[in-house]
Amino acid sequence: MTILYAQLADQIQQLINDGVYREGERLPGVRVLSRQFGVSISTVLQAHQTLESRGYLEARERSGYFARMPRQDAPVPVMQRPKAKPAPVTARDMALDLCSVERKHMVPFGPAVPHADFLPLRQIQHATLWAARQGLETLDYAFPGKEIFRRQIAQRMTNLGVVTTHEDVIATNGAQEAIILALRAVTQPGDIVAVESPSFPGILQALEVVGLRALEIPTHPLEGLSLEGLELALEQWPIKACVVVANHSNPLGVQMPDEQKKRLVRLLDTAGVPLIEDDIYGDLPHEGERPRPAKSFDETGNVIYCSSFSKTVSPGLRLGWVVPGKRFAELSQQKYFNNLATASIPQIAVAHFLEQGGYDRYLRAARQRYREATGRLRAAIAREFPEGTAVSRPMGGFVLWVQLPNRVSGTQVFQDARTHGINVAPGRMFSTTDKYEDYIRLNCANPWNERIERAVRTLGELVDAQMRRAA
Amino acid sequence: MTILYAQLADQIQQLINDGVYREGERLPGVRVLSRQFGVSISTVLQAHQTLESRGYLEARERSGYFARMPRQDAPVPVMQRPKAKPAPVTARDMALDLCSVERKHMVPFGPAVPHADFLPLRQIQHATLWAARQGLETLDYAFPGKEIFRRQIAQRMTNLGVVTTHEDVIATNGAQEAIILALRAVTQPGDIVAVESPSFPGILQALEVVGLRALEIPTHPLEGLSLEGLELALEQWPIKACVVVANHSNPLGVQMPDEQKKRLVRLLDTAGVPLIEDDIYGDLPHEGERPRPAKSFDETGNVIYCSSFSKTVSPGLRLGWVVPGKRFAELSQQKYFNNLATASIPQIAVAHFLEQGGYDRYLRAARQRYREATGRLRAAIAREFPEGTAVSRPMGGFVLWVQLPNRVSGTQVFQDARTHGINVAPGRMFSTTDKYEDYIRLNCANPWNERIERAVRTLGELVDAQMRRAA
Repeated sequence: MTILYAQLADQIQQLINDGVYREGERLPGVRVLSRQFGVSISTVLQAHQTLESRGYLEARERSGYFARMPRQDAPVPVMQRPKAKPAPVTARDMALDLCSVERKHMVPFGPAVPHADFLPLRQIQHATLWAARQGLETLDYAFPGKEIFRRQIAQRMTNLGVVTTHEDVIATNGAQEAIILALRAVTQPGDIVAVESPSFPGILQALEVVGLRALEIPTHPLEGLSLEGLELALEQWPIKACVVVANHSNPLGVQMPDEQKKRLVRLLDTAGVPLIEDDIYGDLPHEGERPRPAKSFDETGNVIYCSSFSKTVSPGLRLGWVVPGKRFAELSQQKYFNNLATASIPQIAVAHFLEQGGYDRYLRAARQRYREATGRLRAAIAREFPEGTAVSRPMGGFVLWVQLPNRVSGTQVFQDARTHGINVAPGRMFSTTDKYEDYIRLNCANPWNERIERAVRTLGELVDAQMRRAA
Repeated sequence: MTILYAQLADQIQQLINDGVYREGERLPGVRVLSRQFGVSISTVLQAHQTLESRGYLEARERSGYFARMPRQDAPVPVMQRPKAKPAPVTARDMALDLCSVERKHMVPFGPAVPHADFLPLRQIQHATLWAARQGLETLDYAFPGKEIFRRQIAQRMTNLGVVTTHEDVIATNGAQEAIILALRAVTQPGDIVAVESPSFPGILQALEVVGLRALEIPTHPLEGLSLEGLELALEQWPIKACVVVANHSNPLGVQMPDEQKKRLVRLLDTAGVPLIEDDIYGDLPHEGERPRPAKSFDETGNVIYCSSFSKTVSPGLRLGWVVPGKRFAELSQQKYFNNLATASIPQIAVAHFLEQGGYDRYLRAARQRYREATGRLRAAIAREFPEGTAVSRPMGGFVLWVQLPNRVSGTQVFQDARTHGINVAPGRMFSTTDKYEDYIRLNCANPWNERIERAVRTLGELVDAQMRRAA
């Protein structure tokens, strides 16, 4: 019953909203609440964390939890229904611009790349030094991956409910490459691929580079990809693959419930359509257990699982992997022909980091930090943006999806923000349609400081100014 | 006048063949020969090296050079004229088989990968340790490459006559990826691409993976790609790109004369067809100066230059680069969409290695070793293979292209050799036609020992056995 703590959180939130617990007032102790609501202590603690990230509770060291009224708790954006027609993917150059050298020095709300403060620099440095000392092992490349790395991945996958041996794993240059290899292996140029809407821009870029058409499926902010929408699409179009981020999708941050994942896997298997799962945010839930990948419900090998260490260990490693299931031969051929193999040192270093338990220790701290950073930016947006702004309530990862009020243009905010030295991702990057023109996405993985705080205020003012001009 | 020593070598060889210097006899001293032929001492020394690699001289420490009669100096294979029609590329799975785990323990005549003994292990290890200590710099990735790496490459390219700034350089996962990015940037699936014949299998695989058709242009063992053949092909077919290895092409080892390179660049520029140059063996001439790349004759930005450190520093780095000329935007977009960037640590390590001058010091020794290894294997083949065998006389790199006598099947040798634990590359991998069915390619970059010597004998016996069965 993972939902119990969420119910409890909702109840307490209601009590705060109703003024039963007033702002600044100390909440009853954990044991008291546990008895009062008839739930376990750990459930109370989870509910506390949830409320903290929603901005309704404040933890004070050695004093307990205090009620807090978010200046305004922004609503979550509602599900959008994009035009249900496949569209070619073009004009994605904005993605390149977002990462340009010029933007390196801006306030980094743009690319979904964690600030170095969030990464285990010392540990990965230590592991790299260890790897460099392995001598001969580092000189050679191994296709389709270094055994030491593939074994560690297989072990982790098995722990997530995906029974895997090292022979099922291919090392890749990040998850993006894994997705592209998968698309190339199962589609032909011109084919239609179903994606979430809003969709991670990297996936749309992958479709563009392979020459595919995107069919956008509505995605619910709390349940993920609409299975009804997908079912309908499968009936109407010759879909050749479906790309889904089932855990903490970017930009919505939604975690698809297990029951939905199971249905998704079955639906696509029955239709004979490969499911390409991108699980790069799976290791970063804000609360509770590490969610299961959709692949863990795959009984026929129809799910191609892609992931990487770019959001957790270091983007500079460019290290990902794919577990292609029954399409192992096609994927490994694609990998070999495209660039033979993945660099050896990063594989050996990460394998060592995993084996020594360093990664799991780091993850425990990282989850907490990402949760806090996301909650903090969310609260700041609720405070600083004009009324009518809606903000996603992510269950993991570190991005926020912000719907601007009165159809203010995200592209305009993107351009205006640039002159203030602030980088954001405009909503139109997340679709082949203009459905998300009034959205922006913000990266929360930055240490909180004066500059960040000021930047949120500036963004709020830019939105406000646009509203005034329109009025 | 780099040709002087070659003329001298030919003259001395003739004298040995004519019995003027008899087998086992000591040659006159260097000064004597210098006076006798009216050439400089360094020219005599270069001629000696040439003859040593041809198997006509043996250097004995502190005693000078001794004449030697190669059992038989195998002739060089003649130029083949493949069917002048574009062909789709398929069934390249043999390449994968060649690198399979099972074959890792065989005598490594198969893949063109240098044995670790030929690589600067200590130096690259040292550079990697240095890189790992750079901290923050290693965590992040830089698109389209780390500036420190791009600057070193730009400097080297400029020294080769290709005036380049770091902004012209994209870091890639090896040269194979560079070639694929180039092909994807300038062609559409189904297009025709001109390639050398015989062609490096990696290039044919690249064509296959991008869905292109190969038009094979005859390639002369001493002059490289036939410009007449290419000119004719350009008139007859809508060629969209041309891939050429101008320096020490694999498998022929031929170095295209500068005059030819210049004509090649002009011809393609006039035709509006991009030239994709693969220069991975350029740093490994057996004699004389590092040859110029075709790109150094490019005045319009029409040449896309690709290279890597896989044949010189370490294949495990998976580090290459591309200088795309006027197609920089298309290439960098392809790179970004395919896998965002190349791993940081290998780039920082190699940049350090280059900057410290370690690479150039290493190259001087490596050229000498590759020359010796190639000469030695060539002499052994001439000795152990049946009469009628022809062997390429490479000017750089470390592979030999062997034409078997009496149309003996290279594929059969490949299969028979496997049962003896010997790996070779069958000729049919080097073409879309069956033109090279009676060829094999051998990798020479192995330390010479009993096992290697025995393996050459076994291969000779396998060829012999096939001839007997046919008779």
